Amino acid sequence: MPTNRKRAARGEALDDIVDRLLSFYSDCDEDRPDSVLGCYPNSQKIIDALKTLIDLLFPGKLSHKPVHRRGLPTYLRNRTARAIALLQPEIERALPFRWKGEAARHEGGHAPCSVKTEARTIAARFAERLPDVRSLLIEDVRAAYEGDPAALTYAEVQLAYPGVLAITSHRIAHELYKLDVPIVPRVMSEWTHAKTGVDIHPGAQIGHGFFIDHATGVVIGETTVIGNNVKIYQGVTLGARSFPLDENGFPIKHIKRHPTVEDGVVIYANATILGGHTVIGRGSTIGGNVFLTESVPPNTVVSANHPELRIKSHYDAETADWVI
Amino acid sequence: MPTNRKRAARGEALDDIVDRLLSFYSDCDEDRPDSVLGCYPNSQKIIDALKTLIDLLFPGKLSHKPVHRRGLPTYLRNRTARAIALLQPEIERALPFRWKGEAARHEGGHAPCSVKTEARTIAARFAERLPDVRSLLIEDVRAAYEGDPAALTYAEVQLAYPGVLAITSHRIAHELYKLDVPIVPRVMSEWTHAKTGVDIHPGAQIGHGFFIDHATGVVIGETTVIGNNVKIYQGVTLGARSFPLDENGFPIKHIKRHPTVEDGVVIYANATILGGHTVIGRGSTIGGNVFLTESVPPNTVVSANHPELRIKSHYDAETADWVI
Amino acid sequence: MPTNRKRAARGEALDDIVDRLLSFYSDCDEDRPDSVLGCYPNSQKIIDALKTLIDLLFPGKLSHKPVHRRGLPTYLRNRTARAIALLQPEIERALPFRWKGEAARHEGGHAPCSVKTEARTIAARFAERLPDVRSLLIEDVRAAYEGDPAALTYAEVQLAYPGVLAITSHRIAHELYKLDVPIVPRVMSEWTHAKTGVDIHPGAQIGHGFFIDHATGVVIGETTVIGNNVKIYQGVTLGARSFPLDENGFPIKHIKRHPTVEDGVVIYANATILGGHTVIGRGSTIGGNVFLTESVPPNTVVSANHPELRIKSHYDAETADWVI
Repeated sequence: MPTNRKRAARGEALDDIVDRLLSFYSDCDEDRPDSVLGCYPNSQKIIDALKTLIDLLFPGKLSHKPVHRRGLPTYLRNRTARAIALLQPEIERALPFRWKGEAARHEGGHAPCSVKTEARTIAARFAERLPDVRSLLIEDVRAAYEGDPAALTYAEVQLAYPGVLAITSHRIAHELYKLDVPIVPRVMSEWTHAKTGVDIHPGAQIGHGFFIDHATGVVIGETTVIGNNVKIYQGVTLGARSFPLDENGFPIKHIKRHPTVEDGVVIYANATILGGHTVIGRGSTIGGNVFLTESVPPNTVVSANHPELRIKSHYDAETADWVI
Repeated sequence: MPTNRKRAARGEALDDIVDRLLSFYSDCDEDRPDSVLGCYPNSQKIIDALKTLIDLLFPGKLSHKPVHRRGLPTYLRNRTARAIALLQPEIERALPFRWKGEAARHEGGHAPCSVKTEARTIAARFAERLPDVRSLLIEDVRAAYEGDPAALTYAEVQLAYPGVLAITSHRIAHELYKLDVPIVPRVMSEWTHAKTGVDIHPGAQIGHGFFIDHATGVVIGETTVIGNNVKIYQGVTLGARSFPLDENGFPIKHIKRHPTVEDGVVIYANATILGGHTVIGRGSTIGGNVFLTESVPPNTVVSANHPELRIKSHYDAETADWVI
Repeated sequence: MPTNRKRAARGEALDDIVDRLLSFYSDCDEDRPDSVLGCYPNSQKIIDALKTLIDLLFPGKLSHKPVHRRGLPTYLRNRTARAIALLQPEIERALPFRWKGEAARHEGGHAPCSVKTEARTIAARFAERLPDVRSLLIEDVRAAYEGDPAALTYAEVQLAYPGVLAITSHRIAHELYKLDVPIVPRVMSEWTHAKTGVDIHPGAQIGHGFFIDHATGVVIGETTVIGNNVKIYQGVTLGARSFPLDENGFPIKHIKRHPTVEDGVVIYANATILGGHTVIGRGSTIGGNVFLTESVPPNTVVSANHPELRIKSHYDAETADWVI
């Protein structure tokens, strides 16, 4: 029967593809570019934990059911317990992947698997930080309300401001970063990046009353230090300029390569500020589309050069361009 | 037994965290930065309503099941009824949060809860606008097809163009904004922002045949006015320059602070145009990466200054930079 | 009874809205701006297929369950079979919408519906390409690790780097593009665009060892050609300058209108590079926020002009601006 023969041929083709595929995967007992992800922390569970934490810090934000003050003690207790239950196993899976230097990497040595106790301690310490995180977030909500003429209620700031979601997620991830948890905070920051367009590395240090308006396209690098009451707009990059390589041609990790932004600075849309030695002095204003790789003193206004204006005469269909 | 003791200790630690957390939440009978979200409209339900409306205006776009013309009357009837059933309670929850001026805010006075009738009237009026919205969207689809050489079918424009999704969602949200519904349209615009990277405030007035290509990073502020047949590219900001503060240092709400863009203007990638007095005259072309805070006459070409070109001689590993 | 009367009135209002809506939809036997989507490929199923393929190429990335090397043969077989089962019917639905030139479009002629065999052949050929795609992606993961000082493990690169997700999805979509499948690869690229902020047209040709850092706002047009070991940052556009129109005023499709980027080039954040004749010579570095519409020779450094710096004296509340 031709149908059976056809089906068999298709089965063989599939076998052949799988055989060829198999040569391109190695197991995850070593951290390699071709490892399968089985030993790594699970992204989906980390994201579940992050959503639980966001819904704990802004009760009802991600739920279909409204949360009122009177049911709050039970609500907070359940969410906190659930967040920890989700996080702890992923922290445990992450700990063997702590950075031990480029040399250690290539020796392939991972920490032994008895990291259960450390994961439990870290999860407990992290939970203790939640009230302080909540306290900081209230100031961030206030900064958004006060910093945006379009904000008419705290309700819309809490429900709809992507900058508030981004800083919420960052303050959570940063606590895990400070507890020296690898991978897990980075997966959190990337979920938030996908949602809001804001890519804040979990290592970035950010003061209180921080507001990112419109949010999309903002990048804040690992070693950035931001003071209090700073406001930045969409498309702003606080990034690395270039970075030194080691003798093997690999970038050297963990050196200060992102800017310092002092208290009260405002940075307008699509400005790019680069370099670990770049300090934006307190009270300064950086204009839109500025490209800056050096420090500016306090209270400086930096603005892009004026663009050229020309009047069109007519469109030339042949060159597909305007004649001026 | 140590296990019981450990478990008890963990329970106490959890109690302690919840106690400390509790001091940072207030109830939502007042609109405050630390309110729980129980009295606010529910974001998830508003998003369900928005998705239903998108699937009504582009039948089958968000469904796994294909929609054909013959089943359309029943399909449209069910979707319209469902959208209204989802929206009306959220409009009702939103109405007490209408803007009554900064002073009224601080008196804390909300409208009484008998807003049921008004919510029903608003929902009915909104539904009546849907055919006109559909009619406008057909012109937007046509503008995308005609404005992009990469578009080969209306099919891909309808299925895959983020700019079409963004303007669809905006035309829905803008109808609710015109009916003076607070919060709800803003939650809709933010869902779309997360999906497309386009942040159009529900208040923005946009003419027919509007096309945003590539979409990510576009910001269009509340008081922006855009004419007919305008095309803008990714990363374009139509934003506020700076804004006056009232005697308490709060930004004054509801004044024209975003640009006016006249008919037939094209704005290329990553241009930033700011200010309520800035008018881009009809037929003008604004080049990529331009930063503009003043008006330009009709038929003007505005372009960024030429960048500096230098030839690399060699890389200096010590300074981690190129020597020129 | 007033309730019945009210209900009837509401039913009539709904009927009226549906009647008015109906005049704005045509059936999908022709590809028009007002067609319902019933004959088009189904976006949701294409996205399901894409997710299956991503989870096949990075086993466990999108699953809650970890995948280890030992279970891999079965895992890969099931995923491959499922991906093909999802894709083949959507390819079949897409084939009648192949581009046949603007003239043919307006004659409305679609290919006959017996495209089943061709769809099956295409799906089989596509599946055969998967091992090569996997092989290329391993090099992309390595490029990300080596190109970013913040990357400490291959684990985080695989789990959390949006640039890796973007190039994974692109390499899948590009195989379908090369097999001349319309619409389907474009729906895939748009899902990835929504997730990562990176909009790579399925037609773009990209060499090995490609890395997009931070990712948001990157646009790479259909006829772009990128060499090996290229690194680009967030907000970079490789786009069209302007494009010639045919005698009916429609953009002419399928001509080279996007840049060529040679081996080893680095392009920093928010640079905009436009035009089909623009070639960025090998080893060149393009600085942040540069706007470039002409070719540069190999080993060139292109950088934006220095911005203006001015010191603030005081804020003028009346003009709402800083006095310099």
